[in-house]
Amino acid sequence: MRKIKIGIVGLGRLGKRHAYNLANLVPGVDLIAACSPVQAELDWATTELGIPRLFKSFDQMLAEADIDAVWIASSSVHHSAQALAALDRGLHVFVEKPMGVTLDECATIERAVAAHPRQVFLIGFVRRFDPSYKYAKELVDKGVVGKPFLVRSQTCDLDEYAEFQLEFVKTGGGIFLDMNVHDIDLARWFLGSEVKEVHAVGGSYVHPGFAELGDADNTVCLATFENGAMAVLSASRTAFHGHDTHTEIVGSKGILKIGAMPRKNRVEIFDAAGAQTNCVRDFYERFEAGFIAEAREFVSCILEGRRPEITPRDGTAATRTGMAMTESFRSKGIIQV
Amino acid sequence: MRKIKIGIVGLGRLGKRHAYNLANLVPGVDLIAACSPVQAELDWATTELGIPRLFKSFDQMLAEADIDAVWIASSSVHHSAQALAALDRGLHVFVEKPMGVTLDECATIERAVAAHPRQVFLIGFVRRFDPSYKYAKELVDKGVVGKPFLVRSQTCDLDEYAEFQLEFVKTGGGIFLDMNVHDIDLARWFLGSEVKEVHAVGGSYVHPGFAELGDADNTVCLATFENGAMAVLSASRTAFHGHDTHTEIVGSKGILKIGAMPRKNRVEIFDAAGAQTNCVRDFYERFEAGFIAEAREFVSCILEGRRPEITPRDGTAATRTGMAMTESFRSKGIIQV
Amino acid sequence: MRKIKIGIVGLGRLGKRHAYNLANLVPGVDLIAACSPVQAELDWATTELGIPRLFKSFDQMLAEADIDAVWIASSSVHHSAQALAALDRGLHVFVEKPMGVTLDECATIERAVAAHPRQVFLIGFVRRFDPSYKYAKELVDKGVVGKPFLVRSQTCDLDEYAEFQLEFVKTGGGIFLDMNVHDIDLARWFLGSEVKEVHAVGGSYVHPGFAELGDADNTVCLATFENGAMAVLSASRTAFHGHDTHTEIVGSKGILKIGAMPRKNRVEIFDAAGAQTNCVRDFYERFEAGFIAEAREFVSCILEGRRPEITPRDGTAATRTGMAMTESFRSKGIIQV
Amino acid sequence: MRKIKIGIVGLGRLGKRHAYNLANLVPGVDLIAACSPVQAELDWATTELGIPRLFKSFDQMLAEADIDAVWIASSSVHHSAQALAALDRGLHVFVEKPMGVTLDECATIERAVAAHPRQVFLIGFVRRFDPSYKYAKELVDKGVVGKPFLVRSQTCDLDEYAEFQLEFVKTGGGIFLDMNVHDIDLARWFLGSEVKEVHAVGGSYVHPGFAELGDADNTVCLATFENGAMAVLSASRTAFHGHDTHTEIVGSKGILKIGAMPRKNRVEIFDAAGAQTNCVRDFYERFEAGFIAEAREFVSCILEGRRPEITPRDGTAATRTGMAMTESFRSKGIIQV
Repeated sequence: MRKIKIGIVGLGRLGKRHAYNLANLVPGVDLIAACSPVQAELDWATTELGIPRLFKSFDQMLAEADIDAVWIASSSVHHSAQALAALDRGLHVFVEKPMGVTLDECATIERAVAAHPRQVFLIGFVRRFDPSYKYAKELVDKGVVGKPFLVRSQTCDLDEYAEFQLEFVKTGGGIFLDMNVHDIDLARWFLGSEVKEVHAVGGSYVHPGFAELGDADNTVCLATFENGAMAVLSASRTAFHGHDTHTEIVGSKGILKIGAMPRKNRVEIFDAAGAQTNCVRDFYERFEAGFIAEAREFVSCILEGRRPEITPRDGTAATRTGMAMTESFRSKGIIQV
Repeated sequence: MRKIKIGIVGLGRLGKRHAYNLANLVPGVDLIAACSPVQAELDWATTELGIPRLFKSFDQMLAEADIDAVWIASSSVHHSAQALAALDRGLHVFVEKPMGVTLDECATIERAVAAHPRQVFLIGFVRRFDPSYKYAKELVDKGVVGKPFLVRSQTCDLDEYAEFQLEFVKTGGGIFLDMNVHDIDLARWFLGSEVKEVHAVGGSYVHPGFAELGDADNTVCLATFENGAMAVLSASRTAFHGHDTHTEIVGSKGILKIGAMPRKNRVEIFDAAGAQTNCVRDFYERFEAGFIAEAREFVSCILEGRRPEITPRDGTAATRTGMAMTESFRSKGIIQV
Repeated sequence: MRKIKIGIVGLGRLGKRHAYNLANLVPGVDLIAACSPVQAELDWATTELGIPRLFKSFDQMLAEADIDAVWIASSSVHHSAQALAALDRGLHVFVEKPMGVTLDECATIERAVAAHPRQVFLIGFVRRFDPSYKYAKELVDKGVVGKPFLVRSQTCDLDEYAEFQLEFVKTGGGIFLDMNVHDIDLARWFLGSEVKEVHAVGGSYVHPGFAELGDADNTVCLATFENGAMAVLSASRTAFHGHDTHTEIVGSKGILKIGAMPRKNRVEIFDAAGAQTNCVRDFYERFEAGFIAEAREFVSCILEGRRPEITPRDGTAATRTGMAMTESFRSKGIIQV
Repeated sequence: MRKIKIGIVGLGRLGKRHAYNLANLVPGVDLIAACSPVQAELDWATTELGIPRLFKSFDQMLAEADIDAVWIASSSVHHSAQALAALDRGLHVFVEKPMGVTLDECATIERAVAAHPRQVFLIGFVRRFDPSYKYAKELVDKGVVGKPFLVRSQTCDLDEYAEFQLEFVKTGGGIFLDMNVHDIDLARWFLGSEVKEVHAVGGSYVHPGFAELGDADNTVCLATFENGAMAVLSASRTAFHGHDTHTEIVGSKGILKIGAMPRKNRVEIFDAAGAQTNCVRDFYERFEAGFIAEAREFVSCILEGRRPEITPRDGTAATRTGMAMTESFRSKGIIQV
């Protein structure tokens, strides 16, 4: 059986998860190389996964490791440059979201992918691979809700991670680009149209530190689409019950809700406090199956010579909309996308 | 508009609720008399409800109050005697469950009701009047679950009432007669057949005091029916989350569950403890609508000259089965009903 | 026991419900008069409720019926004039929402109520009396969710009523004033602040007839409040599963959801279609307990000489915000309230 | 990294799943051999999984394949003989439930495992590895429900598989041994005690064919335990909504429910039929994560020189209790275990 040789770049919290999945849970993969500037992360790659080739430099990995594909899980600011370099070398590319942090970066990637039509390029819009979201999409495509005209989607992180995010927001893109990028992608996916206009509001209701950085800890955005549809996209850094990401698709015949109750598992507790359901704690716990499925899809596309359903255009649209939401939040006005 | 003149006997915790409902929430009623051996309860009847005629003796109320009907909410041991006396006087009778505490009492009532065919006689099997149970019965009668062959039904009271019940159990009938009488009635109602055999087990798992009285705080009973159907009837005095009464009807095409989650209302709480649902605290909170509906049905039957669907035979069957369950629990064997 | 003598005006679909409740389910009331221009409705008042005094003219009822209070359930356009006339006569006034259909009407009422401080004046913001909303408010006031900063609230009606609403919208106020008025009131109630700015979007996604009338069948509005809080207020005329009104209150420590699943009762069905929950069909089925509770509160306020928590200022704020939402929807811009 | 060389026997519906998991989803495994009497199944093993060594005879696989462990997924009647042969050869053994179909077989296995203390022996009580059941066990061990005294557990299969089961029941052990074996194991696990007495009833309510074979399509069993605890163990071959396996643990401080709603995923559908939740269709869909986890645990035990928590005594107890339930069902009496 043919195996795809993959090198991964980025072994942070999420990068380690990707590496573990590729090494253990994705048939058809040989994870033979890993790249990180952090020695401890490379040591982990040896000890835990037995990855044979380790690199501190991405360029060196490209040059020396005999790989078919790269898996980019580095910091957002490196995504587009690393993807470009890999595409130029003829490699298949998986890149975590966001595809790029500027519209220029996005445009460059779009051109490069178009110029290498035989190479698989996949962006990590992991929710599209989550079993529940996939199931919902199948139902929508079958017409179960009729024609969708409204999407409500929200991404909420556990409050205890907020302090950590305060650090991260300085280099990251802020709440709209970091968190709503998935909701934007989902709304476009389900509505089949492009965002036309956004109006975002929000505040730092729990952690004033976000306001000091020009960011927010809770936001809501009203978006309209070219086909007349609407979306309400929310984000929160202050969910106390757990990671609570859910989406609702309203159509001309019915409604689908995905993940309305962020239950951790199938256990319910009845005691002096009433009836309780424990919730998932973080996005990885919620989307573990999706992360494995996206890796399998990447490998399947390579093995079968298919192109993924997700395209660079999706990556660009998510970045463009997230930037418009940020601008709306700051200017307190409606922004054309 | 014609009004039915009613006298109530028994103004304990539940009796007060009945009196309030009759005075305020049941069209077509004049609650003109009340009877209790407790002066404070009679005072309450005056002050809170303005009931004009008060009696310490039931016989005196029958003799002197100009009433059309009696509402019997006294202690179980008085139910049958009071019902008989009222029937003999030509009055309509509502009697709280159990109809009688011995099979002899039940047989006497059955004969008396048969001998007074124009008088309405209704037993307080309140769950049959609960909107959810009524709705379930309509669905079952429409064939939604096909032919029912298994009923699971349980009655669970909040643990904090257990100490109070320890007192009550000395004069009451014990856990099977006090609590499962409703479940027995429901199983017969949904299965349309009579109990043939019971096998009950249980123990005093939380409050050893019940064992000392020959009773239990948690029980399960397996029952088989003449038509081959089955039931699992459970009771618990140690629910910590609230009053949790629920019933499941399994049939040849589907299943109905009634009250599987004993939610207090439509509110859900999401906080550091996860997702929580508060539960109803006691049977009255759970069945308030049923208590009002049964009073309305009693009055409607009188006004319209109808006989209730519930018959003395239902009261006898419940008492007989509850006694058989008690005997099974004590003898540790299967008992023919 | 003292009884309040009430005359009701308006015996349409909802008016009949109010009349029935006042006649049968509200202790302390004598519903002695009713007013409607429709003879059939007056006949119903006689036959079904035995109301002794019937009037075709509201002024005549005020002049001739010996009443303490009026209950106004007539068409919205008559609310303020009838309320004013009754206040002038020294009567207590219950008025269905909206209190007035113009800001002038609202201002006049505010002044009149202030000028008659001993008369009870209550607006039918029924959700505040719903047991679940009341319970949520108590929890919020106890600090269960910390400081609320975001309210999501929506009012959705069953699609099969849309055709009927097409007629009604011509004389009514449109989707924002007709439907969201309750959500506006709830958002103000829970957030404790006034609406500052609104931005509403929507469309006629299922029934093009609404667009022809300048209205919509589905809308979403983003609102900001003077204290910095936010709200998302939605309305739909095209819910296929039932009447689905729910509200979410997000605070600095947790979240409350009220009515997230519009379950009809406590029954769940498991059959070849999966697990199903039937939903409430209309606002009256959903809020029946609230309608009864608001009538009881009105009577209690009169009997106890209390003023209701809801004030004319609440009525004005709801009308003002609903008008701003309508203007935003039509102008496609952000509107200052 | 050391890899365990495994040979699998049995490539039927479930065997294929095990083989796929071992080949792809369990780190530390080389699935190098497979054994089946069916050529098409061996072809599948080559084509789909690339397993290099294929055998029609189990003895030949033991003799010729260079393996560390066998994975027994053959028919129940072969389990004990194959396990014994493998233990004798010094191999680690995973065996699907039931460990044996007679008490003699079970006793022989118990002795053999005791005689080979360094070989890992694991029975496929897969529910113990399901994330929700594991989580529940951790909560119970932490004391969340106090001391457990009642377990309700049921195994329900989709009705459309009943016809297939009619064939299978002829050679299998019947509904109690085939289906309740998991519930028995769970009740023992959570209650920490051995079954003392059982009383099982049931019938062929939907498919008369089961009665003709001395079996049933729906059953309920009341069990008591040596420590005084109780269990209600049910089975159904006629669930129309899906595979519905759930368990409830009642203790002296609270209750845990596992899987009360057999939801397929996180999607809810709201349409003209109301609110619907799709359910899992079969045990594999429900327990996929458990099947993978049990394989990982088997490998971990070997790599770490640990013995599994599940012991042959658990296998014997499940078989013994299942046989007693069958006897009770047939004799219509209470059976001592």
